[in-house]
Amino acid sequence: IEEIPYDYLVLTTGSTSSFPQIPGINSKGVFWLTNPSDALTIVDYWEKEDISDAVVIGSGPTGMECAEAFRLGMSVTVIEIMSTILPQLLDAEMSLIVQKHLHDNGVKVMTDCTVREITSDGGKVSGVKTENGFTEAQLVLIAAGIRPDVSLAKDAGLEVGKAIKVNSRLQTTDPYVFAGGDCVENINLITGKTAYTPLGSVASKHGRVIGDNVTGGMSEFRGVIGTAVVRVFDLTVAKTGLTEKEAEDYGFDIVTSMAPGPDIYHHFPGRKSLRLKLIAEKDGKLLGAQAVGDGVVDKRIDILATAIWMEAEVEDVTGFDLAYSPPYSQVMDSVIHAANMIKNKLDGLVDSISIIELKNKFDSNEDFILLDVRTEEEFAKGHIPDSRVLNIPVEDLRESLHRLPDDREKEIIAVCQIGSRGYEAVRILSGAGYKNVKIADGCMALWSFNLEVSK
Amino acid sequence: IEEIPYDYLVLTTGSTSSFPQIPGINSKGVFWLTNPSDALTIVDYWEKEDISDAVVIGSGPTGMECAEAFRLGMSVTVIEIMSTILPQLLDAEMSLIVQKHLHDNGVKVMTDCTVREITSDGGKVSGVKTENGFTEAQLVLIAAGIRPDVSLAKDAGLEVGKAIKVNSRLQTTDPYVFAGGDCVENINLITGKTAYTPLGSVASKHGRVIGDNVTGGMSEFRGVIGTAVVRVFDLTVAKTGLTEKEAEDYGFDIVTSMAPGPDIYHHFPGRKSLRLKLIAEKDGKLLGAQAVGDGVVDKRIDILATAIWMEAEVEDVTGFDLAYSPPYSQVMDSVIHAANMIKNKLDGLVDSISIIELKNKFDSNEDFILLDVRTEEEFAKGHIPDSRVLNIPVEDLRESLHRLPDDREKEIIAVCQIGSRGYEAVRILSGAGYKNVKIADGCMALWSFNLEVSK
Repeated sequence: IEEIPYDYLVLTTGSTSSFPQIPGINSKGVFWLTNPSDALTIVDYWEKEDISDAVVIGSGPTGMECAEAFRLGMSVTVIEIMSTILPQLLDAEMSLIVQKHLHDNGVKVMTDCTVREITSDGGKVSGVKTENGFTEAQLVLIAAGIRPDVSLAKDAGLEVGKAIKVNSRLQTTDPYVFAGGDCVENINLITGKTAYTPLGSVASKHGRVIGDNVTGGMSEFRGVIGTAVVRVFDLTVAKTGLTEKEAEDYGFDIVTSMAPGPDIYHHFPGRKSLRLKLIAEKDGKLLGAQAVGDGVVDKRIDILATAIWMEAEVEDVTGFDLAYSPPYSQVMDSVIHAANMIKNKLDGLVDSISIIELKNKFDSNEDFILLDVRTEEEFAKGHIPDSRVLNIPVEDLRESLHRLPDDREKEIIAVCQIGSRGYEAVRILSGAGYKNVKIADGCMALWSFNLEVSK
Repeated sequence: IEEIPYDYLVLTTGSTSSFPQIPGINSKGVFWLTNPSDALTIVDYWEKEDISDAVVIGSGPTGMECAEAFRLGMSVTVIEIMSTILPQLLDAEMSLIVQKHLHDNGVKVMTDCTVREITSDGGKVSGVKTENGFTEAQLVLIAAGIRPDVSLAKDAGLEVGKAIKVNSRLQTTDPYVFAGGDCVENINLITGKTAYTPLGSVASKHGRVIGDNVTGGMSEFRGVIGTAVVRVFDLTVAKTGLTEKEAEDYGFDIVTSMAPGPDIYHHFPGRKSLRLKLIAEKDGKLLGAQAVGDGVVDKRIDILATAIWMEAEVEDVTGFDLAYSPPYSQVMDSVIHAANMIKNKLDGLVDSISIIELKNKFDSNEDFILLDVRTEEEFAKGHIPDSRVLNIPVEDLRESLHRLPDDREKEIIAVCQIGSRGYEAVRILSGAGYKNVKIADGCMALWSFNLEVSK
């Protein structure tokens, strides 16, 4: 033991992987990631042993990155205890897009699934038993979240909440002891509540603020809003602020919108996908955004993170003077388009239903009309095979109202491929006196995909 | 003549290409772009005639896009009357990066150059005479800006300034007549002055606001901040807010910073270039940004456009919770890095000099030391050949102060490759009592390039 005197002490003890109480977790071939060297240990084991199947427990960003890496040479199964993957980043309908992409890349995903036991053979892992059966595996990665390392801080009598408590100058309850990085808790600026956000981007800002403060400066770390991004094969998955679920849990009265891609001008070569979801308070304040696609996804979230940081309202976003040229965005970028859609909803011009709610309606045999307003040709290429589905192309709708029930209270849900024709249909039907008309958020592309996943 | 009655009239008369008074401008083979069909006319002429050389008059976004297109099969010369290209988008030191890229792609650029005459042979254009000589050309494109078409508005007695005057609801001085798109003037929200911003992104928002207002709505168009983007071969060039020059012309007391790339984590494969310039008022308010590179450039400008729209201060930007993962950004994105650099300057931690000022110092034989703090190996690979240049690697600097003059008033300008070692050198020298030390903004990479251009 060596005693080193200090003027200021800085605690950067970081975090460690969560270590769930699973029988067999100590078998050889079970890994988790805390330091870069852990990754090298896995690669080493992979090279030496005969491994054909991996199981990843947990579908957060770390689980996703490892699933992709393991697919370079293994069968991969991801097991998630929640009902959807990436639950901290995405609401259900966005999460399904990623789940489909994993499926397309040969990754098996089991949601709503609890691990009962990790089995072994001669000390080496042989598989994973869940409530849904047995999955063979010669390698298991535990990616069930991380925990702050607060043992030293606790021993020193410093206050600890979700992690080490610090003020805006990043001083602990001892003003001569600073702390930053994965071992401290932060303030979420949207909720005003403490949050645990162990991210490099946050730790890096902490480092600068602490460096300033221990050398005579007066810097402050204001807080976080919960921005994150992860790449999953060809998809970029990003979010900022609150998810719809989080916003509801915190008691916000919200409205959402879903802007479908593409990420650049729709006639420009090389366009890619971008699905953007926006969440706002009914009084207009922006609360969160999620985006998924193989286009430039993360920077749309950065634009909205900036907006949320600056406490923007939906009305502000509709006016944003963003850079347009065909190689870079649509004339009205998805960010603005999504805000306009919320504005339309807040102005009472259109009501909507989420794809998840729509699927529940189908499954629970509710009585309604799904009005598919695409062309007959598009409809013939693929549509939902259900007697409640009616195809009237939007250009014929005004002249075909007799094909709809006379009952103006009848629930009618309009869909098209992207959303603009569905919106027009809702306006036409409202004009004709129909009182219970809605558009399906995200429309056909998302909807047909959702059916596919649920098979 | 047919008379059509109206409740509301909407003027969207657009714009036409400026048509400078150049002798010979009516020769066959001289083109300009107002409508898409003009582009087809050019392609038609190109296919029919024997064309090997083109001249583009004007180096704005249209000139740049045409220069790139013509390079598919012609020698191309761009002639610009101002001292740098893309003068409405970029300050001089940023513009030079694009000029070098044009040069690398075989486009000849003549700046500070006025066209005297377009010559012709048998009615067909044969070349362009400037004060600097004659350039052969069988095709000339006039891309010297565009003008609003306000003739109908003027005839109708509506007020016209830079273009048709409208209020925030986009009503002209006749409240039953609305106007939008390239034929109206806008308010620049930073200066509060009128601006002419004929862009699709702006026109598109106008359309929505007018559509709302003529159908009983109450929508407003708040204004613009001057965001624009153009692709020039592999480079993306984007800006928002005011350039340094504009800010100075408007009388703002400013400070700037220059963040060099890369656009993603520096060890991640596929990283590309990104140079970001930030302009702020000395009281901290953000005024503008410019970015050039082959990475994701435009969306960094969108983040800053959002910040400026929301009236952010530099201090706000330093805290922005942007999405970080190695495929998408540095741990501290260039946007945040550039803001931190301005904060350092405002806090008096470092003073800087622009590459342009530094070049002028060299050229005017001023007495100073350019302290190149890169390693001896880097220095050997390439450096400025001048007796005022001294190489002391930053890790040796504390022990090598005897190699610098005793005179603590001596002007010393530190450079390295990127900027961080130069910054450290400035801090070491300040600590050693040197009072007149600066860092060269953008440092070596930009500086060596600038020398190359000036050859």
